[in-house]
Amino acid sequence: MSGTTGPFERLQDVLADDMDAVNTLIQARMASEHAPRIPEVTAHLVEAGGKRLRPLLTLAAAQMCKYSGEDHVKLAATVEFIHTATLLHDDVVDESGQRRGRQTANLLWDNKSSILVGDYLFARSFQLMVEIGRLKVLDILANASAMIAEGEILQLTAAQNIATTEEVYLQVVRGKTAVLFAAACEVGGEVADAPQEQIDALHAYGDALGISFQIVDDLLDYGGASASLGKNTGDDFRERKLTMPIILAIAKAETMERAFWVRTIEKGKQEDGDLDHAMKLMAKYGTLEKTRLKALNWANTAKTALDPMPDSELKSLLKGMADFVVSRVV
Amino acid sequence: MSGTTGPFERLQDVLADDMDAVNTLIQARMASEHAPRIPEVTAHLVEAGGKRLRPLLTLAAAQMCKYSGEDHVKLAATVEFIHTATLLHDDVVDESGQRRGRQTANLLWDNKSSILVGDYLFARSFQLMVEIGRLKVLDILANASAMIAEGEILQLTAAQNIATTEEVYLQVVRGKTAVLFAAACEVGGEVADAPQEQIDALHAYGDALGISFQIVDDLLDYGGASASLGKNTGDDFRERKLTMPIILAIAKAETMERAFWVRTIEKGKQEDGDLDHAMKLMAKYGTLEKTRLKALNWANTAKTALDPMPDSELKSLLKGMADFVVSRVV
Repeated sequence: MSGTTGPFERLQDVLADDMDAVNTLIQARMASEHAPRIPEVTAHLVEAGGKRLRPLLTLAAAQMCKYSGEDHVKLAATVEFIHTATLLHDDVVDESGQRRGRQTANLLWDNKSSILVGDYLFARSFQLMVEIGRLKVLDILANASAMIAEGEILQLTAAQNIATTEEVYLQVVRGKTAVLFAAACEVGGEVADAPQEQIDALHAYGDALGISFQIVDDLLDYGGASASLGKNTGDDFRERKLTMPIILAIAKAETMERAFWVRTIEKGKQEDGDLDHAMKLMAKYGTLEKTRLKALNWANTAKTALDPMPDSELKSLLKGMADFVVSRVV
Repeated sequence: MSGTTGPFERLQDVLADDMDAVNTLIQARMASEHAPRIPEVTAHLVEAGGKRLRPLLTLAAAQMCKYSGEDHVKLAATVEFIHTATLLHDDVVDESGQRRGRQTANLLWDNKSSILVGDYLFARSFQLMVEIGRLKVLDILANASAMIAEGEILQLTAAQNIATTEEVYLQVVRGKTAVLFAAACEVGGEVADAPQEQIDALHAYGDALGISFQIVDDLLDYGGASASLGKNTGDDFRERKLTMPIILAIAKAETMERAFWVRTIEKGKQEDGDLDHAMKLMAKYGTLEKTRLKALNWANTAKTALDPMPDSELKSLLKGMADFVVSRVV
C-alpha cells in the first residue's frame, strides 16, 4: 500500500467535503421508520469502512468536468448503495464468512436480512436517481445493474468449468467490478453535462481501472497478501473459481496436468497438497507473472483513456489511482 | 373459484391482445446472451402460469383511462418482472418448497440462482421503465420497490413476536401485496395522463384490493383450501407467522391461552395437536369469521374507490375483481 501521500489519500483529501456530504446522505437514506433492522445491517457494512472508491470516482469525475451543482453527492450515494446491495447478495451467494476482515452480515444476522436489505438498498438507490431526474443517468445505472447481475450469474455457471476462457473471465470481471466503476465515472461526467467525448473517456477509464482492480484482487488470492485483505490465500482454488492465473495454466496444461485440474476444479475432489501443486503449475507456466502484466496493461489503458480530458489536478490523481490499484502487486 | 364467466376470466378476455403482447415482451426481455441460466430459472416461473393479476391491473387501468399508445405493455411487463423478482427472493427467505403447486426455483436450481436472477429481473424492470421515459412512473415504482423491501424486512422482524399489532400486520400486508397492486393500477392511469383524481382513485383501488387479497390468502392458510393453493393448512402457524386470525386471538387471550401462544409462536416449541388447539382458540373468539369480514370490508373499499372513474365495462370488471378476490372465502 502507498503511504499517506499516495494518490488514493490525496484524492480523498481533495474530495473530503463532498465525501462528508455523501456519508451524511447515506446515513439518512438507509434509515427506515418501520424496519429498524435495516440500519443495523447496513451500519455494519458502512462502519467497516469500505474504501468508498466508487463514490470517490463519481465525485472526481463530476468535479473534473467542472460540475457546480449538488446532484453529484446523490449520485455518489446511489453508486455506493448499488455496490453495498451487491455485496450483501454476494455474501449469501458466496457463502463467505469474512469481508473487509470482519464477519459478513449473513453470519452476524442471517441470509434473509442480507437478501432483503440488499433489495432495500437497491430500491433506495433507484429513488435517489429518480430525484436527480436525469433519464440518461437512470439509463446508465439501469444498464449497469443488469450487467452486474448477468456477470454474477455467468460467474456461477462458469465456476467449476475448466473450459472457461479468458474472454468469459473478462465478462465476469466486468460484471463484478468494471461495470460499476465505469458507470460511477460516466454519471459524474453526465451530471456535469460534459461533452460526449469526455463522458466516453470517463467510461473507458472506469472500465479499465475496474478490470485492473479485479485482476489484481484475483492475483492476490494466490499472492499471500491475505492479512491485509481478510481473505486466505487459495480461497478461489478451494471454491473452484476460474480466475486468470488458473485459466492461463489450464490453457497450457499437458495431459497429466489437465487431469489434475479436472479432479480439483471440475470434480472438486481436493486433497492436502493440491493447492501447493496448483501453485507449482502456475509457476511452471509463469501465469502469476502473466496475470500481473495484464493488470499493469489495463492500468495503462485506464491512464491513456483519460487523454481527452483537460489537464487538471484531478486528472493527475485519477491517473495516479490506476498506479495505486496495481501497486499492490508491483 | 368462479366459473368461466367470472370477472377474472372476462377481464382476461377483454385484455387478451394486450396480454399476449406483454407475454411476448416478457419472454424477449428475460433472455440473456451471456447467461443462459436466466431464462431457465424464469421460464419455470413463467410457465407455471401465475395469474398475471398485476399486469392485468396495469392494462385495465390504462385502457380505462383511454390510453392509446404502446407503453402500457412495457409497464405491465415491468410490474410482472418486479413481482417475479420478489417471488424469487421470497422463496429463499421463506425457505419454501412449493409455489403454485410446483417446486420452487430454489430447490430445482439453488438459492444462488434465485437471488441473482431476481436481481437481474429487477434490473430489467428498471431498464423497461427508463425506456418509457416518464419520471413520475419511475418515481411510483421506485417508491413501491422500497416499500416492498421494507415490508418484507418488517415481516421478518415481526415473525415470532406475539406483540405484533393489527397495524403492523397491515404494513406487512401492504409491503407483501398491496403496494405493488396499487402501483400497478396507478402507473396505468399515469401513462394515460389521466386527471390526478382518477390516478389517486386507481391507487386507492389497488391498495384496498391488495389488502383484501392478502387477508384472504392468510385466512385460507387456516381454511383448508390447500389443494388448490399448493399450500398446506397451518403453514403460517408452523412458521410462527403473525397473521390476522392469530393476532385477533392473541389480543383476546386469557392467561393460559397466552402461555400457549408464547410457547408455540414465540418460543417455537410446537407439539402434535397444537395446530388443532390454535384452531379451537380462533374458533372460540370467532377470529376466522372476523378476518373474513375484514377482507370483505377491504373489497368493498376497493369498489368504492373506483367511484371517481367514468362508467365503463372495465370499471365494472375491476369492481367485479374485488368480489372475485373474496369469493374464495364467501
